[in-house]
Amino acid sequence: MSELSNDLMLFNELVTVLLNEEENHPVAKRIEANVLYDTIDLSLNKSAMADNSFKEVLKDILVATPKTATNLFFNQLFGGRQSKAILGDLLAVLLNNSMYTYKVAGPQVGIEQEIIRQSCHLIGYGSQSNGTFPTGGSMSNYMALVMARDAKDPSCRENGITKSLIIYTSKASHYSNAKNASFAGMGRANVRYIETDTKGRMISAELEKQIQIDLANNLTPTFINATAGTTVLGAFDPIDEIAMIAKKHNVWLHVDGAYCGSVIFSDAKRHLLKGIEKSDSFSYNAHKMIGTPLTCSLILVKDKKHLHDSFSNDADYLYQTDGDDFNLGKTSFQCGRRNDALKFWTLWKSIGTLGLEKIVDHQFELADVARNYLEKHPDYSTYSYEDSISVCFNYKNIDPKALCTLLYEHQITVVGFGEFNDDTFVRFVTINATNTKEDILNFFKVLENFVEEHHPILETAVC
Amino acid sequence: MSELSNDLMLFNELVTVLLNEEENHPVAKRIEANVLYDTIDLSLNKSAMADNSFKEVLKDILVATPKTATNLFFNQLFGGRQSKAILGDLLAVLLNNSMYTYKVAGPQVGIEQEIIRQSCHLIGYGSQSNGTFPTGGSMSNYMALVMARDAKDPSCRENGITKSLIIYTSKASHYSNAKNASFAGMGRANVRYIETDTKGRMISAELEKQIQIDLANNLTPTFINATAGTTVLGAFDPIDEIAMIAKKHNVWLHVDGAYCGSVIFSDAKRHLLKGIEKSDSFSYNAHKMIGTPLTCSLILVKDKKHLHDSFSNDADYLYQTDGDDFNLGKTSFQCGRRNDALKFWTLWKSIGTLGLEKIVDHQFELADVARNYLEKHPDYSTYSYEDSISVCFNYKNIDPKALCTLLYEHQITVVGFGEFNDDTFVRFVTINATNTKEDILNFFKVLENFVEEHHPILETAVC
Repeated sequence: MSELSNDLMLFNELVTVLLNEEENHPVAKRIEANVLYDTIDLSLNKSAMADNSFKEVLKDILVATPKTATNLFFNQLFGGRQSKAILGDLLAVLLNNSMYTYKVAGPQVGIEQEIIRQSCHLIGYGSQSNGTFPTGGSMSNYMALVMARDAKDPSCRENGITKSLIIYTSKASHYSNAKNASFAGMGRANVRYIETDTKGRMISAELEKQIQIDLANNLTPTFINATAGTTVLGAFDPIDEIAMIAKKHNVWLHVDGAYCGSVIFSDAKRHLLKGIEKSDSFSYNAHKMIGTPLTCSLILVKDKKHLHDSFSNDADYLYQTDGDDFNLGKTSFQCGRRNDALKFWTLWKSIGTLGLEKIVDHQFELADVARNYLEKHPDYSTYSYEDSISVCFNYKNIDPKALCTLLYEHQITVVGFGEFNDDTFVRFVTINATNTKEDILNFFKVLENFVEEHHPILETAVC
Repeated sequence: MSELSNDLMLFNELVTVLLNEEENHPVAKRIEANVLYDTIDLSLNKSAMADNSFKEVLKDILVATPKTATNLFFNQLFGGRQSKAILGDLLAVLLNNSMYTYKVAGPQVGIEQEIIRQSCHLIGYGSQSNGTFPTGGSMSNYMALVMARDAKDPSCRENGITKSLIIYTSKASHYSNAKNASFAGMGRANVRYIETDTKGRMISAELEKQIQIDLANNLTPTFINATAGTTVLGAFDPIDEIAMIAKKHNVWLHVDGAYCGSVIFSDAKRHLLKGIEKSDSFSYNAHKMIGTPLTCSLILVKDKKHLHDSFSNDADYLYQTDGDDFNLGKTSFQCGRRNDALKFWTLWKSIGTLGLEKIVDHQFELADVARNYLEKHPDYSTYSYEDSISVCFNYKNIDPKALCTLLYEHQITVVGFGEFNDDTFVRFVTINATNTKEDILNFFKVLENFVEEHHPILETAVC
């Protein structure tokens, strides 16, 4: 039997170990960071390791690796497993195509383009639209920023930045906006953080006011980032209002839907993106609400010309056959690029757009279950709102930072805290669509039991 | 049985299909780009697809997807399969950790750090060194450029670019250098392309001359990109000489080893990087010479301070527990980040550093086999040199562009062409370490037979 066949058998054996472990211990055995290297043999050495020892150390690693697919993981804006997406990503590992040319990626090019085409159609972008699969939401925002910059000042591709190009984003938006301003040579000081309303949505009148100020100072408004699902509260900026302002001042409008842009699949929730067809670019992460493995991020651009203008580069050694439309390297930041599309395609193809809709809708239903529970229990106070899958709360005035840390350290459940204005709270994310209503209620039970049992520790942690 | 178990069974079944297909048809059935959508049902639809039809369409896709792991694929700077790396990457899909925090990645953080530590040790970087796993070689070069820019002009993080920061790279270097200059707001016009010698290596005296010219013009030399394995010829720039110039003018020296930096594992070939310990940053792609699945790119930085200065950002919602050294998101471009380290670790752990050395050395042995063959056959002319795994040649004065395209279109073997100075030639890359000497000789036989059989077509294609 070939070595590969052996290792595929080992893979199957280890998956069984992993799935059993997840069943029996939904929260992984935690190893303190400072004793990690003493606890598991992670060392790389000159000599080969015997197969049996290798298998044992892999098992140790599997057991101790945080479990992001179980019903007690609520810490991130991803979680769970969509098994048809797993299938696609496993195949992508074996196929190992780089997505730059049709010669090397073949039908995988069509797979990527079909996802992009259907996504553009869902948001009402026209026939000039296209997109690509960046490596994540930060990179999607970055690509949008670079396109906006180059559209406003085409000479900067050749000559570099020569004037102050201004970026607008809400105070509740993702931190990549600040980093990206630095990376793109535009500078963090040129980012304007627009005030939000009490529900975390950008106040469009404040945006208008700020643009007027910048224009009066002879600065150049260049890029507006609106958010569909802010990182903490899961709020949706009013795209329709913002789009009017963007149009009036001829400023690029990007909608960062990394977290919740997947509402494009939901008849019930698509209205949260009202006006999206007026944006210049839109991104969403299928590895968040859709539940594919990491990473599966898309950026869609209303006029594909901008993708070409900012990202194409001739390279005779690479682009040798087939047309530009099939040589995807001409519209990506990267050169070699992993196939992030197949996992999304296998899921979408097998369950249909209606299946994706169910995945998205179910997360909102789970959030409703959580909010209803909180409302009925006076020991809780809530900090988030309808139409959000981030359910933010505090319990019995216990310091949420201490609570989340203790829940993690005691391997009870994995959840994090968030901040908005002057409040700090637990941020409970119902993004794992494989969870049931019972899983959601179980989380609160687990949390309450923990507090009950550890009252003395938490006494000192009242906020 | 759970849906996941079913899909894992389907995965195993499809892998068997794929491996059989690779055995019987090492070059995939080619579909003309313009009939792709009519030939395979890639469409995404509203409704779910029945399991049987889904399986059939997946088989169609597998059969038609270009095969990068077989012994007739020589088109890219990657190829083949290292089965222990496949194992690691399959596990990474199931584990699905994002690499930003210890809370969510746990021991995977240690896995990544151990690879970085050992790599830094191999190139003689000291105790202040560290690194990260960018999404590819272009991104590695970009991160190096941003660090160089920020080190030279720290105010640009806050205020943006305000002066001409000059970039130096050889004419034979990767095209990402031009793109990156644009992305970073520095401008393509500020890239100086330094002449190479006849073997494709940067001429350091020309670099010195150009820096003197720029200084005389009050410009700011900021970044030197040296290449360890140029894209076409596989040449190594003289790092030791370049490092002296970089030091003299206080300019950041990055060594782009995306293609051939993995010679750090070879006692016989490490001398090609002489002076590497004097560089400020160094990158290499384990998905190229080491043979892991895409992507597995590392950037190592002599002083980790620069990684933090350019890439860190506070985010209370994210970094909540454990120390900065274990929260890797503080030194990455991205926020959410796929686990690209595990596949490299499983390979390295199982076969040891000595095993990696064998992989690297074998590629040079295969290149020697190819070069020896070419030298003995007067119908060939060669365009590349010793110490390179890019074997560049022409055959019987046949236009290499036409030859490569026809070999591809007739599904004979997959290989590309390259250009250097005024020459165009076939670039045959011996990077698949699972190939044998016989596979290399077979390539030439296949090529010669094809030319013999298709003499009439190729007559018109003489260069």
